[in-house]
Amino acid sequence: MTISKGPQVFPRTEYLRRLAAVKSEMVKREIEALVVTFDRSINYLTGYTARSAYVPQALVISVHEEEPTFILRLMDVPAAIHLTFLERNRIIGYPEALIGNPEKDGYDAVIDFLQEANFATRGIGLELGQLPARAANNFQARLPSARIVDCTHVVTWIRTIKSDLEITLMREAAAIADAGMMRAADVIRPGVHEADAIAEILSTLARGANGKHGTGIANIFMCSSPRAGTSHITWSDDVFRQGSQINLELGGVRHTYTAAVMRTFSIGKPSDRLRRLHEAEVAGLEAALDKVRPGATCNDVAQAFNRTIEKLGFQKESRCGYGIGIDWNEAVTSLKEGDMTVLKPNMTFHLMLGNWLDEDFGYVLSETFRVTDSGADVLTRVPRQIFEI
Amino acid sequence: MTISKGPQVFPRTEYLRRLAAVKSEMVKREIEALVVTFDRSINYLTGYTARSAYVPQALVISVHEEEPTFILRLMDVPAAIHLTFLERNRIIGYPEALIGNPEKDGYDAVIDFLQEANFATRGIGLELGQLPARAANNFQARLPSARIVDCTHVVTWIRTIKSDLEITLMREAAAIADAGMMRAADVIRPGVHEADAIAEILSTLARGANGKHGTGIANIFMCSSPRAGTSHITWSDDVFRQGSQINLELGGVRHTYTAAVMRTFSIGKPSDRLRRLHEAEVAGLEAALDKVRPGATCNDVAQAFNRTIEKLGFQKESRCGYGIGIDWNEAVTSLKEGDMTVLKPNMTFHLMLGNWLDEDFGYVLSETFRVTDSGADVLTRVPRQIFEI
Repeated sequence: MTISKGPQVFPRTEYLRRLAAVKSEMVKREIEALVVTFDRSINYLTGYTARSAYVPQALVISVHEEEPTFILRLMDVPAAIHLTFLERNRIIGYPEALIGNPEKDGYDAVIDFLQEANFATRGIGLELGQLPARAANNFQARLPSARIVDCTHVVTWIRTIKSDLEITLMREAAAIADAGMMRAADVIRPGVHEADAIAEILSTLARGANGKHGTGIANIFMCSSPRAGTSHITWSDDVFRQGSQINLELGGVRHTYTAAVMRTFSIGKPSDRLRRLHEAEVAGLEAALDKVRPGATCNDVAQAFNRTIEKLGFQKESRCGYGIGIDWNEAVTSLKEGDMTVLKPNMTFHLMLGNWLDEDFGYVLSETFRVTDSGADVLTRVPRQIFEI
Repeated sequence: MTISKGPQVFPRTEYLRRLAAVKSEMVKREIEALVVTFDRSINYLTGYTARSAYVPQALVISVHEEEPTFILRLMDVPAAIHLTFLERNRIIGYPEALIGNPEKDGYDAVIDFLQEANFATRGIGLELGQLPARAANNFQARLPSARIVDCTHVVTWIRTIKSDLEITLMREAAAIADAGMMRAADVIRPGVHEADAIAEILSTLARGANGKHGTGIANIFMCSSPRAGTSHITWSDDVFRQGSQINLELGGVRHTYTAAVMRTFSIGKPSDRLRRLHEAEVAGLEAALDKVRPGATCNDVAQAFNRTIEKLGFQKESRCGYGIGIDWNEAVTSLKEGDMTVLKPNMTFHLMLGNWLDEDFGYVLSETFRVTDSGADVLTRVPRQIFEI
């Protein structure tokens, strides 16, 4: 009748360590409860990976208690019991009457909980950078005596430094990304439908690498001629043609930890411009990686890339990357000039050197790397070449 | 140097018709500008399908002008030119300096535009049910003389009634979903890793059906013993075993239009309880579909299902479904008792009869259907059986 705990991705001690770090930030901000609604951060703090965040749910952390309380839709409670380290009395299901109800929703259940747990006159942290305005207004209206503090990305910042256990998953994810990219090199051929190549790549990303299966599928961006100047297009109904260029970005996923890689493909001989850009970008990539060490900044890494490609006659408008981890982009650190975030061991980045120079001309190259005590440990291992088909 | 328009999924007249419907709602609400930030609604109103919504972007509709203005990150402008029906002067890129910048972000570029276009003292609609609180506060602070009106789901409600062109895509998507489910029946076998079965299903969903490729991959939920009482779990690192039950939910996708289907698999003979529940659910499904006609309500359909399975000794706690279209769940209509939404021709629903009776016991069955002048047109066609392996 009851569901058992499943195999846990991390031991309980790992989650308690993460929660202790969050509570330390809560004390600094003088709040007694933190309402975590960003699904990636709920995942980080509990092990919950089910995709139920399209309806309201929240993890409420109290500074006074070891375990947080997870409030979610009743039908998702068995998954929460099975997947997370939480004791079952820490998981509260709200009734189905709050789904598809214009008057009240799941956030009302979270507010009820805060009132009953005596937080109504205390400092309460909300993630106002993600929480919808209407929900935030409801928290304010129904907790008029609480001191609401914006805690956007408080948990995300903690997520930026991985444990060795997380690095193991990032490394497994990187091997899966590599396998996906190498499969692309096998199947991208003139006359092949983009979607049929994607089918093979997806299959590889699920089968995984080194005996570790992919546990999720991240977005795949396949921007082929005449779309080689675009980014973030998934794939088209088109076929590859002789002379086509294909810019491919994909990720491997292990228990939500994602490693990304980008490579450029050319069916036929690459143009001189593309080849020169590639050479500049590889030189820039190496210069950027050389700068990576604890104590250097994101700014330093971006400068190294930018100065190198400038010397070779190119510029890149967009940033050179960002922190990566649970479900890809971490959204707090950028490898760009002016970002003075100091690198620390076991931070992980997607060094994203996609460079879209014209509306119809772009090139992509990237690696996922980890900061070590002595430099950069590049997790992705695909040859740094234009794949000429 | 410039990128050309790509093949358009819908003709310009279709987008203008959709926009006219939105403007009619804007007039009712006495607003002159509507700021659409919900990515599915931007997709609906322009044809933009690139996955760039992880950074701020907005479509600004003026009641005074035929075409809206799309404001997004500079690097995504070529994709917007290529994918949408919009004239290129209606697409504005904001600079990379607004990415990863704690002081200002892309919403500031949207606010700048509203000020320059003389909306600062007018009625402006925002989707406060999705827009993050911090962004909404910024709109309020920087447009103090505007009358901000909450327009959450104004566009979503218009999306609920499809054109025949949209129905064609829904039908193609349903055929892809069917193919994915039938592939699952081929590959779910004892000893097979869940991820290896997923690899085959994903590949089928991308290859498509009837010569129409899948253009995206929706979430796949695979909840296998001992997780047959859970929902929304993607898949696990586990293998299927003799005696395992597998509850599978997946969708086919054509140009973001998604049709979903759920079926239950049993490796070995299903238990008596599972078989009885299946029979009740199939009877309930038929009773629900029989109720579908223009003028009936969502409530009527749910009541027909609920009363039928109650007579057969079962109950279902969660709703019986919801409107479906762009990127799955439409989030405004529910097939549940009390939802008095009146059915109209070319509304499409996921009649979602997943029923999780115990923490460790559940069953799934669903169809995607369209409301026609005379009843329900069921788009998904998988046999309504427990797939016994």
